[in-house]
Amino acid sequence: MELFKKETLESFCSAVYQAAGVLKERADVLAASMVHGSLRGVESHGVSRTGIYLKRITSGMVRPNAALKIERGGRSGAVMDAGNTIGQFAASEASKLAAELAEENGIGCVGVRGSNHFGAASFYTLPLAQKGCIALAMSNAPTTMALWGAGKPYTGTNPLSYAIPAGKYEPLVLDMATSIVARGKIRRAWKKGEKIPPDWAIDKDGNPTEDPEQALEGYVLPFGGPKGSAIALFIEAMAGVLTGAAFGPSLGSMYNDFDREQNLGHFFIAAAPGVLAPGLDFGKRMEAMVAEIKALPPSGGNEKVFLPGEIEAMTEKDRTENGIPLEEDVVKELQELGAAYGLSFPG
Amino acid sequence: MELFKKETLESFCSAVYQAAGVLKERADVLAASMVHGSLRGVESHGVSRTGIYLKRITSGMVRPNAALKIERGGRSGAVMDAGNTIGQFAASEASKLAAELAEENGIGCVGVRGSNHFGAASFYTLPLAQKGCIALAMSNAPTTMALWGAGKPYTGTNPLSYAIPAGKYEPLVLDMATSIVARGKIRRAWKKGEKIPPDWAIDKDGNPTEDPEQALEGYVLPFGGPKGSAIALFIEAMAGVLTGAAFGPSLGSMYNDFDREQNLGHFFIAAAPGVLAPGLDFGKRMEAMVAEIKALPPSGGNEKVFLPGEIEAMTEKDRTENGIPLEEDVVKELQELGAAYGLSFPG
Repeated sequence: MELFKKETLESFCSAVYQAAGVLKERADVLAASMVHGSLRGVESHGVSRTGIYLKRITSGMVRPNAALKIERGGRSGAVMDAGNTIGQFAASEASKLAAELAEENGIGCVGVRGSNHFGAASFYTLPLAQKGCIALAMSNAPTTMALWGAGKPYTGTNPLSYAIPAGKYEPLVLDMATSIVARGKIRRAWKKGEKIPPDWAIDKDGNPTEDPEQALEGYVLPFGGPKGSAIALFIEAMAGVLTGAAFGPSLGSMYNDFDREQNLGHFFIAAAPGVLAPGLDFGKRMEAMVAEIKALPPSGGNEKVFLPGEIEAMTEKDRTENGIPLEEDVVKELQELGAAYGLSFPG
Repeated sequence: MELFKKETLESFCSAVYQAAGVLKERADVLAASMVHGSLRGVESHGVSRTGIYLKRITSGMVRPNAALKIERGGRSGAVMDAGNTIGQFAASEASKLAAELAEENGIGCVGVRGSNHFGAASFYTLPLAQKGCIALAMSNAPTTMALWGAGKPYTGTNPLSYAIPAGKYEPLVLDMATSIVARGKIRRAWKKGEKIPPDWAIDKDGNPTEDPEQALEGYVLPFGGPKGSAIALFIEAMAGVLTGAAFGPSLGSMYNDFDREQNLGHFFIAAAPGVLAPGLDFGKRMEAMVAEIKALPPSGGNEKVFLPGEIEAMTEKDRTENGIPLEEDVVKELQELGAAYGLSFPG
């Protein structure tokens, strides 16, 4: 696969959005979010999304330059109406505000409504951890997942991310969907003619299935059974219900609904260890914990014990130095998207 | 099984602890916490714990009447040094303070160090939700669980609870361990001569096992694979590292360590929807979500879709009206514990 420099992808993607009328600051954030995904090996939230985000902007389903309206909700909270702007821009501003509120008060939170797909959730938590905050990010998502015990989908695969500063080590970073697997994994089992475990999906009639074909016509299940289902529902309540966004099946789909906005909701919580517990050196204490975990023997067959986000951080380091590999079809799409605005890729 | 009135159990358990020198207020909270577990069908955190809590108090491992020291950490946060008092009392006070901070500021949090086993986590979140707050409770726990990819245990089965007010409906309540199953479930498979799924446990050498006997000699695994493992680690960071409590293997065991205190940590977050988003009726919006979920068809074979905590709330209602069933050995133990202080059970 051809390798591309981080900076090349950032400036190209931003240029495409700017050519489509997006303010430079917002186009830069959207491009940086996608390149963050590509850098960390999360291709599904990488520059391969350039086209669908552009389509929603050019079709008028997203109002990229809409003003953000922020209403404070107490000293440590706020709710933002994103006005249907780019999810990544709204989320970036909201997460930074959550960190400011945390630095002022110990803990802070910002909810967002009227937003759109926000890409990789670690794009918001990791920078906050790099500045010393513990950060949580969550979002609801269009209906695709059946709650535990339900025969029809209700929530999306509601993502959850955290980042925790760890002193001299890289921050601990979780960035997960609350579904047990991505649909891509079911598709691979189907291609190979393999069965899938019975807790991955239900068929379209709501019955458990080990047949990947029936699963693909049906609905994916939450990770961790009833526990993960309850966590997905918590995210729906915080990101959707509390913020005033849409929730459940009333959310618009990024891929399928071109007659209405998504009205997604996000929720960010930041905590400042230095304010909450000023007498303790949180970074040093986290270093001690990380060192203890790194010293654990790995379980059968594994090479070492990886901390949350450690593999992604290694990938990011490698790709920052050596370039980001892109599939041929992604390169071709970027070339076509650029060509429509007289921009050549890679430039 | 014999049935006992909620009030009978509360007053008997409190009387036992008072006879052992615990201040009435604290004995009442400890008793109420255990009865909360018994009422909601969580027998493992019910009145069957009376003996072990008493043993730690009478052996001097817990200082029941120690003063709580609270240091504010910003306007919306605080850290409490529980001084090795009863975990339930410290946690009850800390969670109420988190709710006060949330009502003042939108969101609030309180960490606790120097604490002990706090029983059922929903004992702290549910009352906050009944007063209109969204509440989160978490605690670290003595080392029993292997993180994902590790061959030795590091965290405990770190519990997580939330409660979300839902208008006219019962609050949504999650109260879970971050392990995939309780050891009791592995023990039942062993008794029946059944295999266990490969993701439940590792043997004492760190190898995955489907043999319940080897699993019982080994270590339980987190729920949801690497995702649940990362969540257990988050709880360890918040409840243990951030608060100044012990973390990882340095935590004392309630059952095994009678030469030192536990130094457990807890963490509580409360959010006040009416402060954060005063223009929205959170209760009404939650009612709409709950009604939508209740209207979903159940998946294959199930009778209906249950919301988090719904079954426990039904059990609580039933047992409040009709009494709490106790196993014969639990009744016998309560009688013996009481007799030592000249208290007869049931009274």
